Amino acid sequence: MLRQASSHEDDNTAPISGKTKIFAVVGDPVAQVRAPELMNNLFAAGSFDAVMIPVHVAARDLGQTMNALKSWKNLHGILVTIPHKFAACEQADTLSEMAMLAGCANAFRREPDGTWFAENFDGQGFVEGLAANGFDVTNRRVMIVGAGGAGASIAAALSRAPVKSIVISDIDPDRSAGLARRLKISGCDVTSEALETIQDNVELAINATPLGLSPTDPLPFDPKNLGPECLVADVIMKPAETKLLMAASALGLAIHGGAPMLDAQIELYRKFFGVPVSAAGDPEGAVLP
Amino acid sequence: MLRQASSHEDDNTAPISGKTKIFAVVGDPVAQVRAPELMNNLFAAGSFDAVMIPVHVAARDLGQTMNALKSWKNLHGILVTIPHKFAACEQADTLSEMAMLAGCANAFRREPDGTWFAENFDGQGFVEGLAANGFDVTNRRVMIVGAGGAGASIAAALSRAPVKSIVISDIDPDRSAGLARRLKISGCDVTSEALETIQDNVELAINATPLGLSPTDPLPFDPKNLGPECLVADVIMKPAETKLLMAASALGLAIHGGAPMLDAQIELYRKFFGVPVSAAGDPEGAVLP
Repeated sequence: MLRQASSHEDDNTAPISGKTKIFAVVGDPVAQVRAPELMNNLFAAGSFDAVMIPVHVAARDLGQTMNALKSWKNLHGILVTIPHKFAACEQADTLSEMAMLAGCANAFRREPDGTWFAENFDGQGFVEGLAANGFDVTNRRVMIVGAGGAGASIAAALSRAPVKSIVISDIDPDRSAGLARRLKISGCDVTSEALETIQDNVELAINATPLGLSPTDPLPFDPKNLGPECLVADVIMKPAETKLLMAASALGLAIHGGAPMLDAQIELYRKFFGVPVSAAGDPEGAVLP
Repeated sequence: MLRQASSHEDDNTAPISGKTKIFAVVGDPVAQVRAPELMNNLFAAGSFDAVMIPVHVAARDLGQTMNALKSWKNLHGILVTIPHKFAACEQADTLSEMAMLAGCANAFRREPDGTWFAENFDGQGFVEGLAANGFDVTNRRVMIVGAGGAGASIAAALSRAPVKSIVISDIDPDRSAGLARRLKISGCDVTSEALETIQDNVELAINATPLGLSPTDPLPFDPKNLGPECLVADVIMKPAETKLLMAASALGLAIHGGAPMLDAQIELYRKFFGVPVSAAGDPEGAVLP
């Protein structure tokens, strides 16, 4: 689109017109969301006449906004971010297995029959982000701290990978127990434990809490209880290196930050929304295949 | 002044981010709307971090969409086009005098106190478009054929110009009579007449009906009954030269097409929404003062 042209010469883009397809990313707040920039670059690269805008809407107005967006004849897809990923599920006619397992969704599209289908790519994005960095989750023993949207999504994807076992811990034991119960239907060994009891033999330890966003936050868990082969992963994107990752790194453990989880999802979104791909290997991402 | 940024390197634009202000133009259909391109060029020229998108919504979903848009914390303004200009008035907390007189509105903005104010720029755009072509409406005898949204808006602006007199004709005499009654409060001499009785001494004859969009349409009125000093104006933008304008031109009458009405409104929208101006006299319209 025109608006991405600052970083490219936009030979293959066109201004937004009355025919441009609309996509929205819905959250509260939205100032920090990266999806418009990433997705609009993707649209431009694929010469796809579409634009993604940020929609800043409070929880009380979410239902009205989702219903309105779904009524627009030129609205093709919706991404949903914090804090709306759970509530937005009610707006879908059909949920993917991942969205059902996790209880939350982050991508909505209009199906050919006019109904709305919701998918959850957070967990798959996390798993693919790890794979891109050379870590295969298959048959691993995993611990996840935090059973909110991020933790539930990651746990759901890992339960289907499948991993060997998942132990989930949350400051609200009912929440982690409920998630563990729900994920057992996948056949995976999923349990809920108090934090103190779960750090033996873990091969992948994941922080899925917000602890680490602020430099004054305590560690979500202490990495010194982990074995030397354990990979420590954090879902937090800013800072790129959280206090947890720095502590794990100081202990000689391998670490994995939050950015690859979103980066991996962009390609998943591209496929989900049917955006044409740009030529592989084109550094500008702007040449057609 | 406005440029097609797609054909230039637009150094002063930035990608859409989570902080970008959202504007929408709401209509049914929207494929033909020029506002996104014109307004986005304006935003780029003023280095204003905003984007206007087309919103294609049916009449039955208009109220829900207007309420949703107004609830977005990053939604700064709405343009409304056919067929929603009348119904959208109900969505404003306050109407301008023009919107009240015409009974319809085409521009909505959020006021500092959070309420929504609706303005109607169609009539003013028409008057300013005529002025830009050297025709001053002040104290003229005017006839308007068509008392729908375009006719009502133009009649409202002319009644405040003020012109000497306005005679309005519509295939629905109740509609033109109602409009004439409403506009009399402005103190202008406004009457509703059947088409056959109103073509004497007219100095400005305006087609505000859709007749002329299709080449098989009959003429909205016959220009051969007009005096040699009469200017014939048409609100239709496509074709640029309607059958009416061609017939008038063949009779030696001055003519005025539909495009200047929208072109003049872009500057009105700029001021209404508080978009910074680009440097005067800059042929690219892209350098800041």
